[in-house]
Amino acid sequence: MSQAGRNAEVELVTIGDELLLGFTIDTNGAHIARRLAEHGIAVARRVAVGDEVEVIAEAVREALERTGAVITTGGLGPTSDDLTRDAVAQVFGRELLVDESHLEWMRDRWKKRFGRDMPESNRRQAMIPAGAKRLDNKHGSAPGILIEDERGRFVVTLPGVPRELRGMVEDTLIPLLRDRGCGAGGECIKSLTLRTTGVAESLLQDKLQGVIPTEGRDLQFAYLPGVDGVDLRLTVRARNAALAEQQLNRAASALRAAVGESIYGENDADLARVLLDACRSRKLKVAVAESCTGGLLGARLTSVPGSSDVFVGGVIAYSNEVKVRELAVSGRDLQEHGAVSEQVVRQMALGAQERFDVDVALAITGVAGPNGGTVDKPVGLVWICAAIGDRIEPRKIQSWGDRQEIRHRAAQAAMELARRMLA
Amino acid sequence: MSQAGRNAEVELVTIGDELLLGFTIDTNGAHIARRLAEHGIAVARRVAVGDEVEVIAEAVREALERTGAVITTGGLGPTSDDLTRDAVAQVFGRELLVDESHLEWMRDRWKKRFGRDMPESNRRQAMIPAGAKRLDNKHGSAPGILIEDERGRFVVTLPGVPRELRGMVEDTLIPLLRDRGCGAGGECIKSLTLRTTGVAESLLQDKLQGVIPTEGRDLQFAYLPGVDGVDLRLTVRARNAALAEQQLNRAASALRAAVGESIYGENDADLARVLLDACRSRKLKVAVAESCTGGLLGARLTSVPGSSDVFVGGVIAYSNEVKVRELAVSGRDLQEHGAVSEQVVRQMALGAQERFDVDVALAITGVAGPNGGTVDKPVGLVWICAAIGDRIEPRKIQSWGDRQEIRHRAAQAAMELARRMLA
Repeated sequence: MSQAGRNAEVELVTIGDELLLGFTIDTNGAHIARRLAEHGIAVARRVAVGDEVEVIAEAVREALERTGAVITTGGLGPTSDDLTRDAVAQVFGRELLVDESHLEWMRDRWKKRFGRDMPESNRRQAMIPAGAKRLDNKHGSAPGILIEDERGRFVVTLPGVPRELRGMVEDTLIPLLRDRGCGAGGECIKSLTLRTTGVAESLLQDKLQGVIPTEGRDLQFAYLPGVDGVDLRLTVRARNAALAEQQLNRAASALRAAVGESIYGENDADLARVLLDACRSRKLKVAVAESCTGGLLGARLTSVPGSSDVFVGGVIAYSNEVKVRELAVSGRDLQEHGAVSEQVVRQMALGAQERFDVDVALAITGVAGPNGGTVDKPVGLVWICAAIGDRIEPRKIQSWGDRQEIRHRAAQAAMELARRMLA
Repeated sequence: MSQAGRNAEVELVTIGDELLLGFTIDTNGAHIARRLAEHGIAVARRVAVGDEVEVIAEAVREALERTGAVITTGGLGPTSDDLTRDAVAQVFGRELLVDESHLEWMRDRWKKRFGRDMPESNRRQAMIPAGAKRLDNKHGSAPGILIEDERGRFVVTLPGVPRELRGMVEDTLIPLLRDRGCGAGGECIKSLTLRTTGVAESLLQDKLQGVIPTEGRDLQFAYLPGVDGVDLRLTVRARNAALAEQQLNRAASALRAAVGESIYGENDADLARVLLDACRSRKLKVAVAESCTGGLLGARLTSVPGSSDVFVGGVIAYSNEVKVRELAVSGRDLQEHGAVSEQVVRQMALGAQERFDVDVALAITGVAGPNGGTVDKPVGLVWICAAIGDRIEPRKIQSWGDRQEIRHRAAQAAMELARRMLA
């Protein structure tokens, strides 16, 4: 049996022509699937169909026959394209009736919010199949619906607006499914990601040889290489959440022991935040000197709220003149060794350290491409340097990918170098 | 009939537990759908299933019965989870046979690329159902498969690795479907996006009142508000590509006439590139002075290849000391008016213009949040300024969204201000 299919409990039906034309990427489906997995509720299948009553009804009917539990998203808006209500009513052979109290609420909302009468077309949003339950939407105007048949098979409809959907998954869908016993008999799936950067996947594999002994049905392990580095993802299945947590922690400890300091954080940890925290706790101020990244490193660091108590500023030294004038890089070194060289990156870091009177300065200069590469200095060649107090560490890296990836990896590598020096 | 379902020609089946656990967002499905729509081939339904032979076979069989033309992605790798080959063979009642010539090619590839023998497990990737056609993959090691029955119903399997998939959609899938007559009788769907920034959706709606007269079955129009601004998307359907092109151009002309200079580009146009081009053609050099964006504006400008002939550099003046020292901002103005003020943003722009000896200087200072807002200067308040030669134009904007959105909008607004001044 497959991982996902083992406790097949619900199916998702996502509705909207946009999905079939490829204008929209189905992030809602992924979000629901992940949140349900964390609650031990398995998704057996996801289907996307267009805005057509018959097709929606067919997809819902098939899913209902297979698993008896269907969640739909989309098609609850006020326009004539929004047909989920009609399709679901058809599947269950029910009439659509106006929910007067909801209609009243909507009219009120329009008056208060927009200072005018609700357009009559919005009336559709107050239609609910006979015998169905309205699921209040605290995040927008279209309510969800819960409808079931005499055999207990049910459909939950949710809106397609991502913010509304995410809200209703938490405050409505998960409690509702748990009340109905979903996930109770099933396994709980939990996952943990350990983030590394600057270490090749093959090297990680060598380090992890024999470390994850029980891989199999209940424990899965994946290398996820990306532009931030290689993430190590552990996924466990267990009878309940406590057991899953326990197994996850045990496996994570083994991983940590083997991989060591290359791990900079967990799950969605951001290296910029990790570095800023390390500097903050040591009362160190940070500045940057950027050539090929053109401000990206500064942007990464300042994307973290509260970075202003650590990060002071920097120089974007894109042209050679700026490197000389603003960072006191030697014109002769630029000429002799080129802008992408150990000599220049050192002087950039020292220049920034002095100019901004900081403890920590990070410098980057490289060939981001796609043009400008030579045999000696190919596209992807980047020099980074961290100056921390008196310690100055330049590093040469050969990056890959497109211009944006090379720049992103360069900023990541510079932050990682400083993090390691501080560790 | 729905838009997407009208010429139902193919169905997509996406394979992988990752999709049902929500670890992966199905960008492949969206990509295929969009490219096929552009070639007049409609996608009737998209299904995602887990790594289980029976379930994959069931989904493929159902899709085959509905439309007779199925495209799968994923499940072609070398591991035991990769079961698409087996499932498809089962649906067509065929045996899996080793494709000796492909096996040879793979062995060769391993020797050359990795300097060692191919692991025996990879043999699976050379298995092909009897009577099926191998579809060479120039972008990786797993070939695709084309298999059909005596009634002409067929399945095309493609790999799930996005880069490989995208390559094979262009060089294999589209030619193959066109050869089989897909999209020939169907309508051609073409779309064009006109990009605007800095103009509210409601204002655009006022300007466009009555401009798009024939909206309906063949012409659709959508406002797509995002962090870059509001995109205006036109979608037309016509009997053939030439006709679609013609209708699209006619509608686009009407839009351009009504919206005017707020349109900075088409489709995936990047405002940074547009601004750099405008400066390049006038032989103007550019520098930046950034506070709340922390380097983001510089990063945006330098993300464009070849920006170095226009963009010189900048100062990231995150702290007030740096604003005073590096950009000659008046300490008194900082104290009297605060860092987020017209006085300070003007001096930042002038300081950068002088310091970097450039024609065009862009400055940004604002409250990016989530903390640091006051009643007078709430989160989202940003001052931008463009100095072009002797012209100095400061603008106050009240942005919204989270920290990253506020910063992104600020950089976008500063570039747009300069673009308009140059227009």
